[in-house]
Amino acid sequence: MKLKRLSEGELISAIRKDFSKKRPGLVLGIGDDAAVVKVGKIQLIYTKDLLIEDVHFITSHQPAYFLGRKSLNINLSDIAAMGGKPRYALLGLGVPSGSERRWLEEFFSGFQSAAQESGVALVGGDISQARKITISVTLIGEGETIIKRSGAKPGHHLFVSGTLGNAKQGLLLLRKGHSLGKDKKADPLLKAFLDPLPPLALGQDLSRWRLASSMIDLSDGLSVDLSHLCRESGCGAEIYERNLPLSPELHIWQRKCFDFALHGGEDYQLLFTVPTRKIKSICRLQQKYPITYIGLMREGKKIHLIDRRGKRRLLEIKGYQHF
Amino acid sequence: MKLKRLSEGELISAIRKDFSKKRPGLVLGIGDDAAVVKVGKIQLIYTKDLLIEDVHFITSHQPAYFLGRKSLNINLSDIAAMGGKPRYALLGLGVPSGSERRWLEEFFSGFQSAAQESGVALVGGDISQARKITISVTLIGEGETIIKRSGAKPGHHLFVSGTLGNAKQGLLLLRKGHSLGKDKKADPLLKAFLDPLPPLALGQDLSRWRLASSMIDLSDGLSVDLSHLCRESGCGAEIYERNLPLSPELHIWQRKCFDFALHGGEDYQLLFTVPTRKIKSICRLQQKYPITYIGLMREGKKIHLIDRRGKRRLLEIKGYQHF
Repeated sequence: MKLKRLSEGELISAIRKDFSKKRPGLVLGIGDDAAVVKVGKIQLIYTKDLLIEDVHFITSHQPAYFLGRKSLNINLSDIAAMGGKPRYALLGLGVPSGSERRWLEEFFSGFQSAAQESGVALVGGDISQARKITISVTLIGEGETIIKRSGAKPGHHLFVSGTLGNAKQGLLLLRKGHSLGKDKKADPLLKAFLDPLPPLALGQDLSRWRLASSMIDLSDGLSVDLSHLCRESGCGAEIYERNLPLSPELHIWQRKCFDFALHGGEDYQLLFTVPTRKIKSICRLQQKYPITYIGLMREGKKIHLIDRRGKRRLLEIKGYQHF
Repeated sequence: MKLKRLSEGELISAIRKDFSKKRPGLVLGIGDDAAVVKVGKIQLIYTKDLLIEDVHFITSHQPAYFLGRKSLNINLSDIAAMGGKPRYALLGLGVPSGSERRWLEEFFSGFQSAAQESGVALVGGDISQARKITISVTLIGEGETIIKRSGAKPGHHLFVSGTLGNAKQGLLLLRKGHSLGKDKKADPLLKAFLDPLPPLALGQDLSRWRLASSMIDLSDGLSVDLSHLCRESGCGAEIYERNLPLSPELHIWQRKCFDFALHGGEDYQLLFTVPTRKIKSICRLQQKYPITYIGLMREGKKIHLIDRRGKRRLLEIKGYQHF
C-alpha cells in the first residue's frame, strides 16, 4: 500500500494504538493539539511542527523574516488552543549548503521577534545540511486548566475568533505576484498568510475562567478542524453559513468567500465550544476579542451546514491542500 | 556569504548571542548536549535531532526498523551525556508520497522497540509529505544532578565508554555491500553503525554518585567532541593513542583503526572527566561497564595526542563527514 492511499488520520490511528499505553504523568497523548505531561504540580504542554520547503512553503512567496515568525507562531497556535502559556522553544534547521547567510539571519531575526512577543526562550536545537530548507520547531508551554478537543457536549455553542479564509486568499494573491506593502486592500490578506498571529491571550482567558468546554486551532480549515473536534467529543454539529466572520478584503477579492472560510486552512484562529450558562461571560469577552457565534453542537455524528438560503445540508469536509 | 563558509559553530555562536538572555527556570541553554529547564523541583532535559534522507542516512544502507531505533537512540545519547532519564518523545516525520506503508510500519516498529527498552513514551508529533524522508525527534528527560560539558578542570582524568571507531567502519562495510547477519566478523561493526546503544545506565550512575565533572556524547568523533568539552570547560587536554579502546573486529578490517577511533564519529559513547579523588569509584564502575582511561585535562587550550611511539603532537580536530 502506498502512502497516497494512507491518510494522515489512518496513520495517526495506527501510531496511537501502538503507543497509547497509559504512563504516569501523561495527561494527554497523541490526538489533541498538543501533548500534556504533568511534572510535579505543573502541566507541561508539548507541540511540534515540521515545515519543509516546497511542501509547506516556497521561499519565493515567503520572505525569510516572516517564515521565521510563522514557524514559531504556528506552534504557538497549538498552545493557544489548549489555553496554555508558551515558555521554551527548540529549533531544528536543515539548510542547503548554498544558502545565503542573509536568508538565515533574516529567518532568525523573524523567529526571535516572534519569540520575544510571546515570551518564549529558544533553549536548544541543531543545524544541519539538507537539500530543501527544513524547519522543525518544538514548543513547550505550561497550563493550569487544559482545554481539550474532547469536552464539547450537544447543546454547547460554537465560536470562532477573528475572521476566516483570509490566509488562503493571501496565498492566492502571493501566487499571482502580489507582495506586502503595495496595495492596502491586499495587505490584510497577505499578512494573514505570511504572518498569522494566534490569539494566545484569548486562549488563556478562556482557560483561566473555564469558559470553553473544548477547543481546537484552525490550521487545516474550519470543516476539517470542526470534524476533529466533533470526533474527539463524540458529537455532531451544525454551523450557520451566514454567521461566518469574513473580512471586507476577502469580500473584495473573492466571490467564493464562504467556501474559503469553510475550507481555507492556515487561519490559525481558535474554534471553541461554550455551555449555555457561560454565554454571558463570552459576550463580555467579545468586548476584548473578535469572537463570533457560528453554530451549535448536536447529538449524533453528522455535521450540518445551514447555508445562506436557510437550507440544511451535510457539510463537506475538505481541507487545505499543501503545495 | 554562503553557508559553506559559515560553520555550524559560527552559526550557533550567533544564535546563542541572540537568544542567550537569562530566563527564570532556564538552567542550561544552547551549547551543551541538551537544554535544561527547572520546573518546580524537577529539572527537565530537552534535546532534538533532525535526520534527513541522503544527508544523514540513505535508505539503501539503513533498514527502516534500525532507522526507527537509531532516530530515538541518538537523542537518548544526549540525555545519557547529562546523566538524565529519558521520559517522553515527540516525533515529526516527513515522508515522500510514494513511500511504502511497510517502510513506515517497520520504522515505527523500530522506534517503538527502542522507546520500550528505554522507558520512553511517544506523546505527540506530526506527519507530513516531504521530498526526502525527514525525521525530527524531540526527547524530554529528567535529571537530578545534571552533568555539563563545562565542569572539567586541569588534572581531571579522561574516560570513554565502549569502543571507538566501529560505527565508521560499519558504514564503510555497508557501502561495500555488506549486510547484517552474514559475517560474524563484520556484524559488530555494522551493528555499531546501524543500531547504536547509548550507555544510559552508565550516564545515570555517573550522575547519581556525582563522579563525573563533565561529560559529552561522542557523535562527531572523539577529536571534535573532546574539543567541545575543552572549550566549554576552558581547559586543554592530552590523550594517549595507545589507550584508545578498539574492538578486535576493527583491527581485522581497518589498518587505520586509530584514526577511526580519533575521528570516526557516530560512536554514541560517553566521554567524561573525573577528579583524582573519585578515580577509585570509577575503578569499581569498570566492573559493571566497559570504561577506558584515555587521557588527562591540562591547563591552556591545546589538545595533544601522545601517539603510539610516545611522540607528543597537537591533535588534529577533524570530525565525521555526513553523506
